[in-house]
Amino acid sequence: MNKDINKNEIRVIVDDFNANRPFNRALGLVIKSPDFESSFMTFHIKDEFVGNPIYGNLHGGVISSVLDVAGGHAACLSAVKNIKEPIREKIMEKIAKVNTIDIRVDYLRPGIGNFFEVKGRLLRAGSKVAVARMELFNDENSLIAVGTGSYLIG
Amino acid sequence: MNKDINKNEIRVIVDDFNANRPFNRALGLVIKSPDFESSFMTFHIKDEFVGNPIYGNLHGGVISSVLDVAGGHAACLSAVKNIKEPIREKIMEKIAKVNTIDIRVDYLRPGIGNFFEVKGRLLRAGSKVAVARMELFNDENSLIAVGTGSYLIG
Amino acid sequence: MNKDINKNEIRVIVDDFNANRPFNRALGLVIKSPDFESSFMTFHIKDEFVGNPIYGNLHGGVISSVLDVAGGHAACLSAVKNIKEPIREKIMEKIAKVNTIDIRVDYLRPGIGNFFEVKGRLLRAGSKVAVARMELFNDENSLIAVGTGSYLIG
Amino acid sequence: MNKDINKNEIRVIVDDFNANRPFNRALGLVIKSPDFESSFMTFHIKDEFVGNPIYGNLHGGVISSVLDVAGGHAACLSAVKNIKEPIREKIMEKIAKVNTIDIRVDYLRPGIGNFFEVKGRLLRAGSKVAVARMELFNDENSLIAVGTGSYLIG
Repeated sequence: MNKDINKNEIRVIVDDFNANRPFNRALGLVIKSPDFESSFMTFHIKDEFVGNPIYGNLHGGVISSVLDVAGGHAACLSAVKNIKEPIREKIMEKIAKVNTIDIRVDYLRPGIGNFFEVKGRLLRAGSKVAVARMELFNDENSLIAVGTGSYLIG
Repeated sequence: MNKDINKNEIRVIVDDFNANRPFNRALGLVIKSPDFESSFMTFHIKDEFVGNPIYGNLHGGVISSVLDVAGGHAACLSAVKNIKEPIREKIMEKIAKVNTIDIRVDYLRPGIGNFFEVKGRLLRAGSKVAVARMELFNDENSLIAVGTGSYLIG
Repeated sequence: MNKDINKNEIRVIVDDFNANRPFNRALGLVIKSPDFESSFMTFHIKDEFVGNPIYGNLHGGVISSVLDVAGGHAACLSAVKNIKEPIREKIMEKIAKVNTIDIRVDYLRPGIGNFFEVKGRLLRAGSKVAVARMELFNDENSLIAVGTGSYLIG
Repeated sequence: MNKDINKNEIRVIVDDFNANRPFNRALGLVIKSPDFESSFMTFHIKDEFVGNPIYGNLHGGVISSVLDVAGGHAACLSAVKNIKEPIREKIMEKIAKVNTIDIRVDYLRPGIGNFFEVKGRLLRAGSKVAVARMELFNDENSLIAVGTGSYLIG
């Protein structure tokens, strides 16, 4: 059944993300993407994520990091969506080729909060290049930052 | 003497950077900027900075983080350069107002290496906005990534 | 009445745009922005806008131009929105200070069409800096390109 | 002889640029690139390029246009550099595939001048994606604007 195949593919991506990527793990990102069309992640602030303790705000580098990860994850979902033989080996091979070409981040408001949500969706899903837009929200649903990234997927 | 005043100003910035900024400290960045014209920082790779352990490469988020810090530090140096009364309080007040508006990062080569250098210099140093270009090199002097950032300094 | 004041303010901006900006006129842009919250413009393709005559597509430079104008216009609308004394002289003074700091453009699909719509809206409307996101659609409502721009408004 | 082959390849690109690209022609760009390593173009200001006649400055859209063209031309030079059979048909086929993925432009100073130079060089020249940095100078050798663009070349 197509739906289960999809679930398996996402499972391989999530397992790889959690087990094999040290900096993703350091960011504490939890993947909650429900389908192949968009990425959705959450994380809690940690002491070492703070830019300036006077404000308790997320450092800009943490913000750009989680936005890049959300865009790359959206590109991975798209890359494996139409894979012909969705076995673990093929999926891993596919997502290993996804790389960020470039990213832009706009810092809109101070990253104040305990809990954050990161969302990504593709504007372009070509065979070679994907373009994603990403958003970071805090626990009051304020838009903290946005990003746009180009990803090599071929 | 002007030269000593300058050294004092940089000292205040460096002390603030090292003592008060948790995520900068987590990145392990050491400031070596020799003057007000450009920023220069170094850091060593840590296990948790790795994107994919198969390659041992720096995660893209670490790369964008250090580039942003190098650009912001160059903007801080410029902001305090012509401060009229360069006492600690005035310098701290000035650098507290420096904020990243936006940044672009281009990932050129895999971030392979044990030791890295980050450089920043201003292309525009206005009274309200500074624009910086940043570069990341590995210990074989390969250009790993470049960035351009706009910073609010007023 | 507030509504009429608003209309007058937009009228001054539109008149300035049409009468005084040669390249905006060369682009053939017609302002249709209904309020202070977002910009909306339309234009028709001209022979000299074409990138490659084999495809008849809009040149990338035309695309980045109209996106920048739509973002700058949104920043102007925001800048004059809360002006205390909305007379022509004050409005002109305000919008003369609006300048693009930087812009990013993502080219998503070939710019094929006879008629195009450009939309802009602000993500951040500070007293010094505004950040806008812009979109270009063709006459089949396909999203041709998107942009993000930072504008100095103070 | 290698040198002549190179000249032929550049000649095909320049001929195509001048004969077949309407918006490039409208910009009045003259290609003076001396080799495959970097692009170099010049143009004169025209009345319709002006943003605001009070200042006589280049419109931001003209600036982003010439920077994009200089980056794309550098990507074309790189794309044809190692072409195995450098006949006109193969070269045309190669450069027809070069497309801008995205571009960032930083506006540093008002574009005042009669005559301008645009330079581009590649930071990354992969088989699929090229990354270029571009600069715009006026006739007093002031740096007016810089850009960074990613180009699909495969």
